[in-house]
Amino acid sequence: MLFAKAAILGIGLIGSSLARNLKQNQDVRELAVYDASPANLQKARELALADICTDSLPEAVKEADVVIFATPVCSFGELAQQIKSYLKKGAIITDVGSVKQYSLQEIEKYLNKKEGYIVVGGHPVAGTEKSGPENGFASLFKGRWCILTPDENSTPEAVALLTKMWEHCGMKVDTMEIAHHDKVMAAVSHLPQLIAYSIVGTVADLEGYEHKEIIKYSAGGFRDFTRIAGSDPTMWRDVFLTNKQTVLELIQRFVEDLIALERNIRWDEGDKLFNLFKRTQKIRKDVIEAKQDQPEHEKRILEELGAKNIDKAE
Amino acid sequence: MLFAKAAILGIGLIGSSLARNLKQNQDVRELAVYDASPANLQKARELALADICTDSLPEAVKEADVVIFATPVCSFGELAQQIKSYLKKGAIITDVGSVKQYSLQEIEKYLNKKEGYIVVGGHPVAGTEKSGPENGFASLFKGRWCILTPDENSTPEAVALLTKMWEHCGMKVDTMEIAHHDKVMAAVSHLPQLIAYSIVGTVADLEGYEHKEIIKYSAGGFRDFTRIAGSDPTMWRDVFLTNKQTVLELIQRFVEDLIALERNIRWDEGDKLFNLFKRTQKIRKDVIEAKQDQPEHEKRILEELGAKNIDKAE
Repeated sequence: MLFAKAAILGIGLIGSSLARNLKQNQDVRELAVYDASPANLQKARELALADICTDSLPEAVKEADVVIFATPVCSFGELAQQIKSYLKKGAIITDVGSVKQYSLQEIEKYLNKKEGYIVVGGHPVAGTEKSGPENGFASLFKGRWCILTPDENSTPEAVALLTKMWEHCGMKVDTMEIAHHDKVMAAVSHLPQLIAYSIVGTVADLEGYEHKEIIKYSAGGFRDFTRIAGSDPTMWRDVFLTNKQTVLELIQRFVEDLIALERNIRWDEGDKLFNLFKRTQKIRKDVIEAKQDQPEHEKRILEELGAKNIDKAE
Repeated sequence: MLFAKAAILGIGLIGSSLARNLKQNQDVRELAVYDASPANLQKARELALADICTDSLPEAVKEADVVIFATPVCSFGELAQQIKSYLKKGAIITDVGSVKQYSLQEIEKYLNKKEGYIVVGGHPVAGTEKSGPENGFASLFKGRWCILTPDENSTPEAVALLTKMWEHCGMKVDTMEIAHHDKVMAAVSHLPQLIAYSIVGTVADLEGYEHKEIIKYSAGGFRDFTRIAGSDPTMWRDVFLTNKQTVLELIQRFVEDLIALERNIRWDEGDKLFNLFKRTQKIRKDVIEAKQDQPEHEKRILEELGAKNIDKAE
């Protein structure tokens, strides 16, 4: 038992997957989940994800030892402000946001050490393109990394408790400096996501190609981008707006590299294309060697998806 | 039995997967495979993929009723020229190339109706990022589309035979006009592939980010691009060089769209980002409804990969 009471704010893919773990791992005696959406709350109740499923922030956070922000990051400031007067002094505040500088700045405007609260930023690097409580599952985090970004509002004890919480979910836990986290994530996550959104938009807009054909032959490669670009629009809008400078810089670098490739194609520089493609093949091998893409893990995720019959069209 | 003897030129992912089908489906009495690589031939022999595994083109194509080009497309012209004097008159020539205008032009320089041969372009739209005979498997084609592009060197009888051959592999077969095929594939396959290569290059080159970190946290999204960018360098170099004009035009459109997105981020136009992301989510739903991304199918592929223990690092 890590916490007598935990409150999760936002019961989407990540929030609901964590809820499943907290109950299953017996890390909390009482679990409350808050969501502003009646539909999400209804699903959370049907799935028995928590002891308390409520649209009342005071009810959710009252007496909680830990509060986990799991809503889109642009809502963090408002939520922090709203829960402040109901929070128990000494409570640990953490989050699961993909951008840490902005998120912590917003939370710590209202909740910080001076006010009697302990804050530790967190980011479980896991997910699927699905959203909503019905798409979460306990093994989502297994084998993945969770990054904690402690700062002057953190304590070693709180970091240790949250480390245990995520380890019980099957994660490997790392700590990182806040600004560095946002740079690394811009590269490995935010830029790839933006590119996927962009290319799916470009291809879908092509005139003279029937939309039907694009979908029909999407197994040619386009399909993989649609999977990524099927992710939650609100969450990702917030990520791009709040990690703006780093993302903008990376877009520029990417465009430069793409234009260079375009030039290689135009001037028949096959050897330059080949060399890049050889290099990316090597990077792929590194990813596999680092066990960051494991058929066994993917298979388990697909089984979860299959078992829950989420893709209604199938 | 569709053919007394078939010859497959090139025993990579697609060639070897087709070989497994032709034997298994009893569509050929005798199967010959040609490859210039001694290592590939050795593997093909170990896997008993064909009755004849040879680096001699005359031996492979002699008396063949059908010859299937399954090498990178830039080699087609040379191969066609080399096999011409050993080919039986009336033989059907087909291929599996991702670019049809260039491929057929090269083949038909030497092999055409006037010379006594029947040519039908083909493109099974299926694959994984793996290459080589050891990575092929019979169910690779199942549920996917195969596009045939008959022209003035084709006959309805040859189209019917090849349709049966691919249907026996589990494919749905469609015919398409040659130039249209290359445009559709540029959009659903060639552009996405190029973007994946490009982004993996960009991210890998970032200074100040440790290469180790990029790999470690690649589950954030980058990983999915490395999977695509792990594909065969020679095959893809040839695709970009031979479908040049269409690919160049699409790169331009993509860059325009990306720059527009960049501007949306810079000027905090969250509603425009949200609208695009909502639209791409709808496209994702269309792909699932068209059964072009099915957990069941992916699971089977992962099982095949797992069973063959291809990712040695795991």
